[in-house]
Amino acid sequence: MRVSEIGEFGLIRLLCREFGIEYPPPAGQTPRSGLLVDIGDDALAMAPHSGATVWTTDTLVAGMHFLPGRTSWRNTGWKAIAVNVSDIAAMGAMPAFALVTLCLPSDFCVEDAIELYRGMKECCDSYAVRLGGGDIVRSPVFAVTVALSGLAAPDADGKTALLSRRAARPGDVVAVSGALGDSAGGLELLQSGAGPDDESRSRLIEAHERPRPRVDVGRRAAELDIRCGMDVSDGLVQDLGHIVNASKVCIRIDAGRVPLSQELRRTYGEKAIDLALTGGEDYQLLLCGRRALFERLVVEGLDLTIIGEVIEGQPRLEVIGPDGREMAFGAGGWDHFRSGEP
Amino acid sequence: MRVSEIGEFGLIRLLCREFGIEYPPPAGQTPRSGLLVDIGDDALAMAPHSGATVWTTDTLVAGMHFLPGRTSWRNTGWKAIAVNVSDIAAMGAMPAFALVTLCLPSDFCVEDAIELYRGMKECCDSYAVRLGGGDIVRSPVFAVTVALSGLAAPDADGKTALLSRRAARPGDVVAVSGALGDSAGGLELLQSGAGPDDESRSRLIEAHERPRPRVDVGRRAAELDIRCGMDVSDGLVQDLGHIVNASKVCIRIDAGRVPLSQELRRTYGEKAIDLALTGGEDYQLLLCGRRALFERLVVEGLDLTIIGEVIEGQPRLEVIGPDGREMAFGAGGWDHFRSGEP
Repeated sequence: MRVSEIGEFGLIRLLCREFGIEYPPPAGQTPRSGLLVDIGDDALAMAPHSGATVWTTDTLVAGMHFLPGRTSWRNTGWKAIAVNVSDIAAMGAMPAFALVTLCLPSDFCVEDAIELYRGMKECCDSYAVRLGGGDIVRSPVFAVTVALSGLAAPDADGKTALLSRRAARPGDVVAVSGALGDSAGGLELLQSGAGPDDESRSRLIEAHERPRPRVDVGRRAAELDIRCGMDVSDGLVQDLGHIVNASKVCIRIDAGRVPLSQELRRTYGEKAIDLALTGGEDYQLLLCGRRALFERLVVEGLDLTIIGEVIEGQPRLEVIGPDGREMAFGAGGWDHFRSGEP
Repeated sequence: MRVSEIGEFGLIRLLCREFGIEYPPPAGQTPRSGLLVDIGDDALAMAPHSGATVWTTDTLVAGMHFLPGRTSWRNTGWKAIAVNVSDIAAMGAMPAFALVTLCLPSDFCVEDAIELYRGMKECCDSYAVRLGGGDIVRSPVFAVTVALSGLAAPDADGKTALLSRRAARPGDVVAVSGALGDSAGGLELLQSGAGPDDESRSRLIEAHERPRPRVDVGRRAAELDIRCGMDVSDGLVQDLGHIVNASKVCIRIDAGRVPLSQELRRTYGEKAIDLALTGGEDYQLLLCGRRALFERLVVEGLDLTIIGEVIEGQPRLEVIGPDGREMAFGAGGWDHFRSGEP
């Protein structure tokens, strides 16, 4: 069935149902907790709360960020939510409400839209995100834009605990969660047409298609008074560059300490480290703070690895290779308008 | 110059400059008032405040919501902000921060993007909206999505004063701000290729291209304890239907009382009332509440007109025509996927 056959409101009704929401909302229904005005009005109204509200938006465009024939609509839905959850995690906050804008061709299949929403629902359920409304418009090309709000709790002193890119200080160590490069490895497999032939490959593809943002790490880091963090979305080297520029610090990284998964090593061998250094979309967190705090987080069971230090000196990034010499990287990194491949 | 020539970050830098924002933000710069973390991080962080946060999103797609050859980029920028401001006004709140997502073809002109941002800036300045970041992505088709936050102040009792579609009650009168139909009249002139030959026509076209949402009306209504409101975006009849359904009330409107501008009457004669009843995008406010409250608002100088009543009975809308008989309307109204014309 085509979207044009059921119209905008028919589609909204179907998609809300995937989230267990009756649309239009029945008269007399009270708003969900945390809301003063729920879906179905001109805007969503969130009840006052004592912490800060954080707020981000990110878009996936068909043919640019994913290829519809190669990635399922369900995984696209997951990722549309996940990339935004990662930005909220990178602030040390908890995700809350998502506004979803769908740009749909009028011959778009209703069944595909439902699959997309199922993927979104799976990710929302994993991260306690609730659907807060949005907009559905006709467009020659499919795109999904999510605007996601999050809440940052005040700390014991009543101050809001947040992570930012601007808070790295000499003396800090640099740590990263999980392993890096898996998503880039998975993308390369997808692009080469290689299927998920073995368990390693299928894990890498899953890392690319269904990334798992680190709300757990961001929140615990913020609670422990770590103040500098961001997510690894453009690639480790480029993202470290953002911290260098925002904090005006010098960062030295030991490439040999960058965590690599068994699956990436097994599939890519020596190339694994390149994928980990420059590949994007891992959606792990990059943090800078006092060494003792990270040691404490590791004892608590978080998968954090110290990969370098923030040192005195002019703002720059030094990546020390396995041979003890500084590695060189181009000015590059991901740029939507200069890179050709989705 | 094409966007591909300066890249994503070069473009962000240029567009932020239009808003007087240095990007990337210099180290040590303190966030703007109301913010804990400003543009240039993973997400925007708004400081805690005592009222509710409202939140909406709306999109304009080239060829669907406007025709690039017919509408200037500056006016498109104005409208992209204005349609969202109107949703915030419809809640009785004050707009605050905008996240802007641009979907741009890589051969898009940088100069057009700057014009777009100039129009956005003009509208933001008119309504005290501040740019809060966003996303720029490559796309085969131009689209601009704005997610806008707003703040609703608590009233004297500490309760949040908001307007919603669900609060109409029998005994209320129905009032509308400004005049209706001008935007639809302007659109028809644009579609027919008629230029702004005289002052009336140019006023109608301006009403369509640079709508002026009624934050003043929404806010004052909410302060006065009027509880039901929405903006007129889909057309009066369709939007009244939303209130009928959300509040489960019967509404009777007198078509002869619907306010029409001189310009609309002069240009369209007898057809003016049809444009006012079914034409969309006026972005005036529709309110239901006690008659005495509206009389007070009129005395204060607000341009409100009482056009009907909320009465006891099954949920339905009755529009009484000039001949005293009920007018008939199709099930229609604007549907993105069923209507052919932008």
